[in-house]
Amino acid sequence: MYRTHTNGELRIENSGETVQLSGWVQKIRDKGFMIWVDLRDRYGVTQLIFDQKRTAKEIMDLVRTVGREYVVRVEGKVIERESKNPHLTTGAVEVLVTDMEVLNPSEIPPFTIEDDTDGGDEIRMRYRYLDLRRNPVKEKLIFRHNVTMAVRNYLSSRGFLEIETPYLIKSTPEGARDFVVPSRMHPGEFYALPQSPQTFKQLLMVGGMDKYFQIVKCFRDEDLRADRQPEFTQIDCEMAFVQQQDVMQMFEGLTRYLLKEIAGVETGEFPQMTYDQAIKRYGNDKPDIRFGMEFGELNDLAQHREFEVFNQAELVVGIALPNCAGYSRKELDKLTKWVKRPQIGAKGLVYVKYNEDGSFKSSVDKFYKASDFEAWADRTGASPGDLICILSGPASDTRAQLSALRMEMAERLNLRNPREFAPLWVVDFPLFETDKETGALHAMHHPFTAPKPEDREYLETAPLKVRANAYDLVLNGNEVGGGSIRIHDQTLQKRMFSALGFTSEEAQAQFGFLMNAFKYGAPPHGGLAFGLDRLVALLAGKEIIRDFIAFPKNNSGRDVMIDAPALIDAQQLEELHLHIRMDKED
Amino acid sequence: MYRTHTNGELRIENSGETVQLSGWVQKIRDKGFMIWVDLRDRYGVTQLIFDQKRTAKEIMDLVRTVGREYVVRVEGKVIERESKNPHLTTGAVEVLVTDMEVLNPSEIPPFTIEDDTDGGDEIRMRYRYLDLRRNPVKEKLIFRHNVTMAVRNYLSSRGFLEIETPYLIKSTPEGARDFVVPSRMHPGEFYALPQSPQTFKQLLMVGGMDKYFQIVKCFRDEDLRADRQPEFTQIDCEMAFVQQQDVMQMFEGLTRYLLKEIAGVETGEFPQMTYDQAIKRYGNDKPDIRFGMEFGELNDLAQHREFEVFNQAELVVGIALPNCAGYSRKELDKLTKWVKRPQIGAKGLVYVKYNEDGSFKSSVDKFYKASDFEAWADRTGASPGDLICILSGPASDTRAQLSALRMEMAERLNLRNPREFAPLWVVDFPLFETDKETGALHAMHHPFTAPKPEDREYLETAPLKVRANAYDLVLNGNEVGGGSIRIHDQTLQKRMFSALGFTSEEAQAQFGFLMNAFKYGAPPHGGLAFGLDRLVALLAGKEIIRDFIAFPKNNSGRDVMIDAPALIDAQQLEELHLHIRMDKED
Repeated sequence: MYRTHTNGELRIENSGETVQLSGWVQKIRDKGFMIWVDLRDRYGVTQLIFDQKRTAKEIMDLVRTVGREYVVRVEGKVIERESKNPHLTTGAVEVLVTDMEVLNPSEIPPFTIEDDTDGGDEIRMRYRYLDLRRNPVKEKLIFRHNVTMAVRNYLSSRGFLEIETPYLIKSTPEGARDFVVPSRMHPGEFYALPQSPQTFKQLLMVGGMDKYFQIVKCFRDEDLRADRQPEFTQIDCEMAFVQQQDVMQMFEGLTRYLLKEIAGVETGEFPQMTYDQAIKRYGNDKPDIRFGMEFGELNDLAQHREFEVFNQAELVVGIALPNCAGYSRKELDKLTKWVKRPQIGAKGLVYVKYNEDGSFKSSVDKFYKASDFEAWADRTGASPGDLICILSGPASDTRAQLSALRMEMAERLNLRNPREFAPLWVVDFPLFETDKETGALHAMHHPFTAPKPEDREYLETAPLKVRANAYDLVLNGNEVGGGSIRIHDQTLQKRMFSALGFTSEEAQAQFGFLMNAFKYGAPPHGGLAFGLDRLVALLAGKEIIRDFIAFPKNNSGRDVMIDAPALIDAQQLEELHLHIRMDKED
Repeated sequence: MYRTHTNGELRIENSGETVQLSGWVQKIRDKGFMIWVDLRDRYGVTQLIFDQKRTAKEIMDLVRTVGREYVVRVEGKVIERESKNPHLTTGAVEVLVTDMEVLNPSEIPPFTIEDDTDGGDEIRMRYRYLDLRRNPVKEKLIFRHNVTMAVRNYLSSRGFLEIETPYLIKSTPEGARDFVVPSRMHPGEFYALPQSPQTFKQLLMVGGMDKYFQIVKCFRDEDLRADRQPEFTQIDCEMAFVQQQDVMQMFEGLTRYLLKEIAGVETGEFPQMTYDQAIKRYGNDKPDIRFGMEFGELNDLAQHREFEVFNQAELVVGIALPNCAGYSRKELDKLTKWVKRPQIGAKGLVYVKYNEDGSFKSSVDKFYKASDFEAWADRTGASPGDLICILSGPASDTRAQLSALRMEMAERLNLRNPREFAPLWVVDFPLFETDKETGALHAMHHPFTAPKPEDREYLETAPLKVRANAYDLVLNGNEVGGGSIRIHDQTLQKRMFSALGFTSEEAQAQFGFLMNAFKYGAPPHGGLAFGLDRLVALLAGKEIIRDFIAFPKNNSGRDVMIDAPALIDAQQLEELHLHIRMDKED
């Protein structure tokens, strides 16, 4: 036996008991006649005491040979501590060691195993197994486990079945970012790893399973933006015989439950906003509504004067930065520079200081009067003491730029309180979007998303006007879930494919098995998928998802701990009938 | 809204209520003035009644247009049935329909959606989404969901954390049966899909996570035997600071819990048997102990007489087939033919009829006396009325042949009661086995399995004598779980690699990151993995795992529903820098 108790378990009530503990040596203090060792495991830290009066000499000698991260087993007696440590759950006691065994020595770890470590990102990733011993990392994995257990129990108690869908599926020509898997038994043929179980969950609805969920890995072989992973986890859900409000109600319930049980926050009914409203008010389809700074459109107030920049703009739009009227010339210049960075791309920044005394001071003073600024302040919700920042230009770009400024300033002004939770439904997404390069029509979600009944008449004539029965769940400015009601009617599905420019042969080739399934009595259905990695991070008040993944990959999709991907054996390639063809520039 | 109730919900207490139901048309009976429709969903069947006196004419006309598997929504009034159906949970009532809407028509399905269908395996696989609507299939998926929920709640309540390990890992030269995944971002390099999360769960132990589990997909690209899947699911578990009995006790507890909660069977402490005993008594390391027919070794009783076949054999071994003494000449010939089939490979079969009157009749009467047969009967546990079957030859082959005969006869004699559960631990596996072709030493489990402390002295001198701290959990003749205590000591690990014929460079190249991790204080640890697919099937009293998988692949690893694997785009290949090279013989 290695232990009678864990290192987080002993209390004053255990005084006098003989116990065995095992764990890692966290810290050693040697005062000559006495040695204290902090022994650590997943559950906590217990102080061991080696006392030359009461501990055998060979044990005293042995403990002097151990170092940090050695694994030891001790036997001893629980005694009350003279100076208790209120920061430790076991801080009322210590264990007077009578026997000890070194289970495994340790080399000096490449960084300190402390809450605040001296190790950088790169080295901690390479030695992830050591990083996991640190409380901040360990606690995130425990937190994630608690979230998934809560999700499963909630959904299961509401009649959802967790059903595993296959990982070895088929690549579709659309799936340019599929990871593929060569088959040894079928030379020249490939499986693909799922980007999501979308078609399978729809087939489960056709199969009458009624309520499905799955916590499932999904895969996407794409250039990784910061904090994206080639493999990520979804809470994937689908329901039959439902309308949009049924799905939203169910998963609002789940989210409210998680906020309460996991984050300890009570939330009322989640607000809803249309996609159009979100874009107009926040320049963004996943607005953070923990703070204001709503957009004020100023075209009618600011155009047709002498300021040509505004006159020529499609959109003039501003926000009020709270209590920033006191910004210095230098600070304003820095802000202007910030919006003009290529990542943001604004042409310039117009500001209006709404001073505490009610006066205005602006970069466009010579074109406008105080009464104009008053109207702008009114439109942007500015109060005395605020700084109004105004951007102008093409509507869509300008909104994106102002949204970026809004988020940046909220961060700088500490308005993004991680312990505050502001969920929001964004609804009525457009069914289609146009490809910026080719101008071609694409499905904004996917080609099985149902258009709103009242918009269906425009499918052929004005497709961009058609809104979808699609909805996103936004939490603190992040999309945590998204879904839609699906098309279950073959005629409508054909119109959809035709609007997307597919011939019926192409549609059949790409989506044939799903369309065939729909011939045999597909029920109305819809669903939603949560991005689990992000949801977990947000519930913990964090935004970096990588910390909530046990063995994450870096930004180039590489696992630096095991060094994958890697070359494989020539023989393996041969069995797969594959040749690697490196172009000269590689 | 599509429904106020499901089709499994209405009871006599609902009489008089106006309800809405949705579902699939299971059956229609048209008596002219009245039409009955059975409406089905996941939850059950409700009888609808359309009565020309009480239902509007257009609804009567509409219902006459619908066929089997149409999806409809109806509104109506719950009324008590005149002739109740005790086989249906809703059999006390029917719904008098006042309104109906066809939500989706259906073509005639390729097989009947009934418990006993007219569809063959192949067509049901191709239309798996329709097969899922059948109760026997649907219920297996619900059963599987209940098992996984029970597993998760049991382990979580005992301090296990479910931690996701990566799917995109690294191929090892040993992993000849790895599925590999070419990386687009790292041309020429590959990930591999895990055959199990073995190394990651060991790293989690090094990382101090203490108790880990995961219900996880694993992958193996091998020639598929019947009822094997290229992707399969494990309940993967690992614990730190444990010895063999700790791990066995924990997962015996889980298994006992599942047998009770899921299968409704109480079981006591699981019996244990060493590998050697299992092989000697049953010819098999996963014996089915629901029935007897234990092996009786007859060398000392049957050799050194005039029967040369026995005299020259390494092993003479028999079993008693209960109540088979009455077998006819023809039946005995058939049995002999059966053991001589190439799949079994016995040279012949010696039988001794132990007649009800106590007399013996044997195929070797001229070589042996009644007193010999009496001794054989005693050794094989035969009673009057039994048939003793004896095989002889090389020990290992002969045991395997007799084991096959034992299982076959148990099947024919209905001794394998699927509602009876006989769990068994098989322990003390050999650490090594020799490759039949090359004679090289292989790790029987994997190279991290700990040898028994008392056997370690033979690692270099007599490795085949060394037993492992490895254990299998056997249920009704199937291995449902297996695991071991791992080596956590570097010196021992090096001896192990050296026994396996690795140079230290080779060991470093293949297992470097795990061996590095072991330098930093690896705790003693061990674990176990259950094959979920088989466990679920056995708990349900079945043996075919494919039925318990929502979308299984066939015996050649093909998903016939979606037709995967398949060819991929030339452009996709190009982005992956791959060429397919088909040999002429393909």
